[in-house]
Amino acid sequence: MTNATTNPATTYNSGKGEGEPVGIAILGYGTVGSQVLRLMLENAEAFEHRSGGPLEVKGVAVSSVDKHAGSLADQKGLLTTDARALIDRDDVDIVVEVIGGIDYPRELVLNALRNGKSVVTANKALVAAHSAELAEAADAAGVDLYFEAAVAAAIPVVGPLRRSLAGDQVQSVAGIVNGTTNFILDAMDSTGASYDDMLAEATRLGYAEADPTADVEGYDAASKAAILASLAFHTRVTADDVHREGISSITAEDIEAAKQSGNTIKLLAICERLVDDQGNESISARVHPTLISRSHPLASVDKSFNAVFIEAEAAGRLMFYGNGAGGNPTASAVLGDIVGAARNKVFGGRAPGESTYANLPIADFGDVPTRYHIDMEVEDRIGVLALLTQIFANHSISLRTVRQEEKDGHARLIFVTHTARERDLAATVEEVKGLVPVKAIKSVIRLAAQ
Amino acid sequence: MTNATTNPATTYNSGKGEGEPVGIAILGYGTVGSQVLRLMLENAEAFEHRSGGPLEVKGVAVSSVDKHAGSLADQKGLLTTDARALIDRDDVDIVVEVIGGIDYPRELVLNALRNGKSVVTANKALVAAHSAELAEAADAAGVDLYFEAAVAAAIPVVGPLRRSLAGDQVQSVAGIVNGTTNFILDAMDSTGASYDDMLAEATRLGYAEADPTADVEGYDAASKAAILASLAFHTRVTADDVHREGISSITAEDIEAAKQSGNTIKLLAICERLVDDQGNESISARVHPTLISRSHPLASVDKSFNAVFIEAEAAGRLMFYGNGAGGNPTASAVLGDIVGAARNKVFGGRAPGESTYANLPIADFGDVPTRYHIDMEVEDRIGVLALLTQIFANHSISLRTVRQEEKDGHARLIFVTHTARERDLAATVEEVKGLVPVKAIKSVIRLAAQ
Repeated sequence: MTNATTNPATTYNSGKGEGEPVGIAILGYGTVGSQVLRLMLENAEAFEHRSGGPLEVKGVAVSSVDKHAGSLADQKGLLTTDARALIDRDDVDIVVEVIGGIDYPRELVLNALRNGKSVVTANKALVAAHSAELAEAADAAGVDLYFEAAVAAAIPVVGPLRRSLAGDQVQSVAGIVNGTTNFILDAMDSTGASYDDMLAEATRLGYAEADPTADVEGYDAASKAAILASLAFHTRVTADDVHREGISSITAEDIEAAKQSGNTIKLLAICERLVDDQGNESISARVHPTLISRSHPLASVDKSFNAVFIEAEAAGRLMFYGNGAGGNPTASAVLGDIVGAARNKVFGGRAPGESTYANLPIADFGDVPTRYHIDMEVEDRIGVLALLTQIFANHSISLRTVRQEEKDGHARLIFVTHTARERDLAATVEEVKGLVPVKAIKSVIRLAAQ
Repeated sequence: MTNATTNPATTYNSGKGEGEPVGIAILGYGTVGSQVLRLMLENAEAFEHRSGGPLEVKGVAVSSVDKHAGSLADQKGLLTTDARALIDRDDVDIVVEVIGGIDYPRELVLNALRNGKSVVTANKALVAAHSAELAEAADAAGVDLYFEAAVAAAIPVVGPLRRSLAGDQVQSVAGIVNGTTNFILDAMDSTGASYDDMLAEATRLGYAEADPTADVEGYDAASKAAILASLAFHTRVTADDVHREGISSITAEDIEAAKQSGNTIKLLAICERLVDDQGNESISARVHPTLISRSHPLASVDKSFNAVFIEAEAAGRLMFYGNGAGGNPTASAVLGDIVGAARNKVFGGRAPGESTYANLPIADFGDVPTRYHIDMEVEDRIGVLALLTQIFANHSISLRTVRQEEKDGHARLIFVTHTARERDLAATVEEVKGLVPVKAIKSVIRLAAQ
């Protein structure tokens, strides 16, 4: 099966000798790592056919061998606490990183890449924080860095963006990429319950962690937004470039109001290509609660499911839907990447790596075009509506709809704006807040682009 | 960029010389071919970055140069009527077949593969009819055969099945893979109009061809089912192996009855892995109108959109949705394949080829487990229901629901069965048909698996 006479000076992938197995090191043996090992051993024949040669797991690195006594990895004599030595073994060709965290896996992954091992990782935080460093190490060594599982687990998103849409131009990506927050928002929507109650329910059912901050405040989604934007727009985007708002301030009233207007609220990771009046391109990557029509394909994504909606110049609208978390779905994505990396070890060739040629500027969040849905309580007297609409006009914001309702001696006003600069919308809300006749701003939620 | 010292005896991909362009020949210049050329020329810089080297279109083969006078291909001096000579040019590395038909493109594609050119085709009929011959020619020459556009155009389905799910085990694939029939069924559903009227509407709007047989009788979907089943189950499946029924017998009453029971009717391409009582595996590939719940993700796929729903062991449920036809969406998929083929020409390496190692038997359609929804008119007298339910029992078919309604002195009976062998269900309907108290079988439609 080997197809290249190696020349160390110029060769990226040497190709394995005929029939020689591709060696795999698994770093981490939690819910994902244990499923990866199980499936690789159970379906060894299938893996051999798909990879072009046999695969062999050489070891599984863990922090404590005792903790995994009796496990499959233990039975097969694969456990080791020395991750570095495992990576450095000559018969290891591919390193699978499913530890989690950032600093320790970063060190191991860089070590692996620099030693000529291809890497498969499921670690979104690592990829979002250090993609440039990792990509450069992979390029320098001529090996592959795969991370399909880092975004939306089993849903193929990285592959389609890197490969299937490689000849197209992506305009926008909007994704429900965090299952915990989608579970909470969906449960609030279907039961009318409060955020706190549904967070507690999510925790009870294992959808939320003991400290849910990374999920509910949008940090996890921001990492994925950074990865999606990098892939879609051929530009380096890190999690720090992503504007981030979580869902902890969403109330049962917000959800109810959304329902009444035929909408629902989702935490979306939005990546957009922007073009200003002079034709200059920039990109925006942001995570925030977003009001979307119930007829939008993303609205029906319920429970902890994930979905990614892509608009591309030639392809038009595409959506990918499925399980965005969990041991088995994540393992599925990791296994697909292992086969890809193994094929390149057997046949030579390289996976598409980091692509940054477009190198587009990242727009300041204040300059991003957004639309607002503003729900407020005002004094019920003549002139208030005129006063408020004048303030919108002063900020060059045109209104799409205004709805007024009587409520307990107050008036409730719901404004939906046309698209305007985020900065101007925010300034408008700030100014309106300070007005005497305005009793309370009940909620301010952005709407999805039309 | 070259990374392999070539050895004609053992080398599949030699890699191009540094900076030497990858030569592309486009066969066919209709709606797809013209968009492929336009996008390649407009986005040349992007293609170079994504492919690892520059791409250059060497020629566009057409049946008549005059017919395309003044076109972009003409302006660039690319048109030729000699497809064979174009393919044989030494500087052509990749042949893009977007002609359509079977016999002529088959000859050209085989010629290209045998001459060491990788092939990208959008031709589902060709791939479904001759996949084995094409795959063998590609393997013998060590080149790539790509056909993402052959199934559901811009929606990445072939890539995910070949790559992303390569480490998983697919249990079933159910797809809306024909836009014409989905347009007609969706229009019948939303307007209540007849099949004939909505077919006429589809023709008027350009969704149906003058002779709509290939679409409405399910031949197009059957080709795609064969391709999907081959990929999902690592087994050779041709269009002839696919049980096929079209939508021309679906009536407005069928659609209305489906609505009343919370369902809708879709033409589905269904590919399933079956396991009998002895644990023996087989596969089924079939195309027929199918009753699905309105809450099923496929139910909301409207207009001419396509969607493919996959269930895999580890990944769970996945759905891919988007434009399944049209010049631009098809070109998007073709371009992604061109980048993949070009990368392998630049870096060496091979795309996943045909995988047939599982070689599962194809189940006889009569043995396939299905469920029926049967709507009939019977005489309104005592004993008829008892007689009918006895016949179901005689065929070992258990009933899930029975609904009886009075209607103009007749009784209407709607049976929904549990899963049973197709053969037994068909025999039951045949026996019931002949009974004196049965006035008419209004419709028999299969239900999606639970």
